[in-house]
Amino acid sequence: MRLSDITDMGLPPGTKGLPLDGSILRVGDLAGRGLNLLRGDLPMPAAVLKRSALDNNLRVMQAYSERVGVKLAPHAKTTMCPQLFARQLSHGCWGLSVATMTQFKLCHDIGVPRLILANQLVGRAEITGLAHLWAQTPERSYYVLVDSLAGAKAISDGFSHCSGAPPARLLIEAGMRHGRCGVRTVEEGVALARAIQSLPHIELHGVEGYEGLIVSEHAGHDAAAVSDYLRTVLRLCEALAADHLFADPDQVLLSAGGSAYYDLVAHALSDRSRGVVLVLRSGCYVTHDSGFYRRLLTRIQHREVEGPAPILVPALEVWSRVISRPEPDRAIVLMGKRDVSYDIDLPMVRWWFREGRHDAPQSIDGLIVDSLNDQHAYLTVPAEADLGVGDLLGFDISHPCTTFDKWSLLLEVDDDYTVVGGLKTFF
Amino acid sequence: MRLSDITDMGLPPGTKGLPLDGSILRVGDLAGRGLNLLRGDLPMPAAVLKRSALDNNLRVMQAYSERVGVKLAPHAKTTMCPQLFARQLSHGCWGLSVATMTQFKLCHDIGVPRLILANQLVGRAEITGLAHLWAQTPERSYYVLVDSLAGAKAISDGFSHCSGAPPARLLIEAGMRHGRCGVRTVEEGVALARAIQSLPHIELHGVEGYEGLIVSEHAGHDAAAVSDYLRTVLRLCEALAADHLFADPDQVLLSAGGSAYYDLVAHALSDRSRGVVLVLRSGCYVTHDSGFYRRLLTRIQHREVEGPAPILVPALEVWSRVISRPEPDRAIVLMGKRDVSYDIDLPMVRWWFREGRHDAPQSIDGLIVDSLNDQHAYLTVPAEADLGVGDLLGFDISHPCTTFDKWSLLLEVDDDYTVVGGLKTFF
Repeated sequence: MRLSDITDMGLPPGTKGLPLDGSILRVGDLAGRGLNLLRGDLPMPAAVLKRSALDNNLRVMQAYSERVGVKLAPHAKTTMCPQLFARQLSHGCWGLSVATMTQFKLCHDIGVPRLILANQLVGRAEITGLAHLWAQTPERSYYVLVDSLAGAKAISDGFSHCSGAPPARLLIEAGMRHGRCGVRTVEEGVALARAIQSLPHIELHGVEGYEGLIVSEHAGHDAAAVSDYLRTVLRLCEALAADHLFADPDQVLLSAGGSAYYDLVAHALSDRSRGVVLVLRSGCYVTHDSGFYRRLLTRIQHREVEGPAPILVPALEVWSRVISRPEPDRAIVLMGKRDVSYDIDLPMVRWWFREGRHDAPQSIDGLIVDSLNDQHAYLTVPAEADLGVGDLLGFDISHPCTTFDKWSLLLEVDDDYTVVGGLKTFF
Repeated sequence: MRLSDITDMGLPPGTKGLPLDGSILRVGDLAGRGLNLLRGDLPMPAAVLKRSALDNNLRVMQAYSERVGVKLAPHAKTTMCPQLFARQLSHGCWGLSVATMTQFKLCHDIGVPRLILANQLVGRAEITGLAHLWAQTPERSYYVLVDSLAGAKAISDGFSHCSGAPPARLLIEAGMRHGRCGVRTVEEGVALARAIQSLPHIELHGVEGYEGLIVSEHAGHDAAAVSDYLRTVLRLCEALAADHLFADPDQVLLSAGGSAYYDLVAHALSDRSRGVVLVLRSGCYVTHDSGFYRRLLTRIQHREVEGPAPILVPALEVWSRVISRPEPDRAIVLMGKRDVSYDIDLPMVRWWFREGRHDAPQSIDGLIVDSLNDQHAYLTVPAEADLGVGDLLGFDISHPCTTFDKWSLLLEVDDDYTVVGGLKTFF
């Protein structure tokens, strides 16, 4: 698949948000038709991405990373949208990160030159799959994680059966106690590195960590815990370098940094020694959000450990209509678990629009989403609220990943909610 | 789109569960290749549907509905899988139910003869969309819900602009206090019916209710509350009939019944008078589950209000691999919020399989999913457990709707986990 194929790609039946008249058959049909969400041209619900916000976020995050001297390999799993990947790469991103070999293959197929499988590579289908993909493009820089001898042996064995593939480039994942994957101590990491050195078809190229699991109500405590953890990651990297365990000492990859603590990662890990390339993997900056990551960005702004934080703007909104006002303090909206994130926060009512009354969406307070069914949202509203059946509501979301995966197509809109294009996802 | 088109349909890049070698390009390529999940032919995670369980569920639910004298219009939103819709219809289902006009259009396009939009029809795009679809096939039986005068007027107005469409067939939605959509009293319903009678291009054809919102820890209390609610639905239907407010008194549609209380619905509402067609809308019976609906089926079995309950078998499992054993009592599996339901219960470990050691999946107890990230599951395991990196685990799920919507393709397997086909979803 090439990126140009996406605009020609047929949109499958059942694609949400498309006009019901069958006038939009391909992604490319969406641009320039003048379809407008507020004018009622689209069936609800619909997920929109504001182009101005996307443009801002792409620009300011790239500028930030260049200022603090790090590379970006944004996590592709957030959006799984190759059109957005292309914009990230054209803004200067070093590469992309992925979570599974299925995601890896998609990025490989569209030609991404540098990829980190930011996850343990396990499973014969996955290991031989990587080897065969890489054999097609041995000039690419692909990296995968390992945290166990069993894992390293399986990768070594899998790559031995594919003659055209380069040696697998491994990063040792440095975990944290009670955390996710990853070795728990520097000693464990060094022992694993020595084992890797003794196995054929695999090479050690760096160290990876993920600090984003540390999130509590206490910003100061979290920042301290993240900094502690990052010191361990750095100690492991330094121990491996001192013991000459990296295959290419002049090009050691050190990767950490989700969307919550990239400032601390840059501060703790960047530019420590010649030959270390620090790669951040933030995925959510491109759309940002109005909940979880908004709160975490506020912390970055307060910390100012690497100068001013990038000023990100929420790009993603889900819109739908009030379909019932069954009781004075209750409104039901056609939007449910199928349409919007509910794993960290419920969606938040941001905009109100009634055709014939409003020229533009109105900010609105006091409407609260209490719960979601599969296809419905329950809102508590002030009993005196002038909110009627048919009114449009625009919702802010928290945690973009779990909204993206509910949409095979998001509508890219200008600030007047006119559709300027379609952004196709591949989950 | 015709059903035969689905097997020829190209599978988009990024489709989860497909071999990474590019050998499967279309749905139809999956049958007869001998791909086997246990043999490690597929990248993980993968969602599978057991053909034997699907066959059983289709058969026993149809037999049950015929025995108790009701029609089935299974809710299509559960699976959004036209291949399963076709099996449901060929087993004798009366029609299908849908939640949105986008879902409606898909079912219209594949030729479903009877459809209930089991939701309020609101929005100009949606109303005119329905009118234009129906104008193409005026012989079809389509029904939509209404619970407000504003809604009825908007449908009347929308249909007035499409000359070829039959009058819209409305069902008044009967709600419950503190519930979702729907009129709250019989009086409100009768007043709405009188208004509908006075408006052009719309006709009243029945009454709809949804009792499935009533779920607490107390089976007896729930059954009493459901029966109370169903009596109100019936009273509304009888009041409308007595006042001659139905457009076709010989063919009045009465619809209720999700997957939790269809026995009580059949008992309370079936065969009350000539001319009333009772339509159940259970969506989850086709796959059943091992959590929420298993518990509710147990209640049906205990109640026995309409004779023996259908013996449904869970068809849906999600499989993946242990990718890390970072601490003695911890295993990390490549399966997260992107892959499996987490809205009612977390997934439950059911099967363990290690290639070279097991000939078939082993039942396993004592492994507990504590939490999910986007792409990972955290399992607490007994510290002495012989569970290694690379082992396969099969997970039971709770609430099929929120697992289906995470997969654009589910693999249909035989009892040995050999892939016998692909089931494509359209979310």
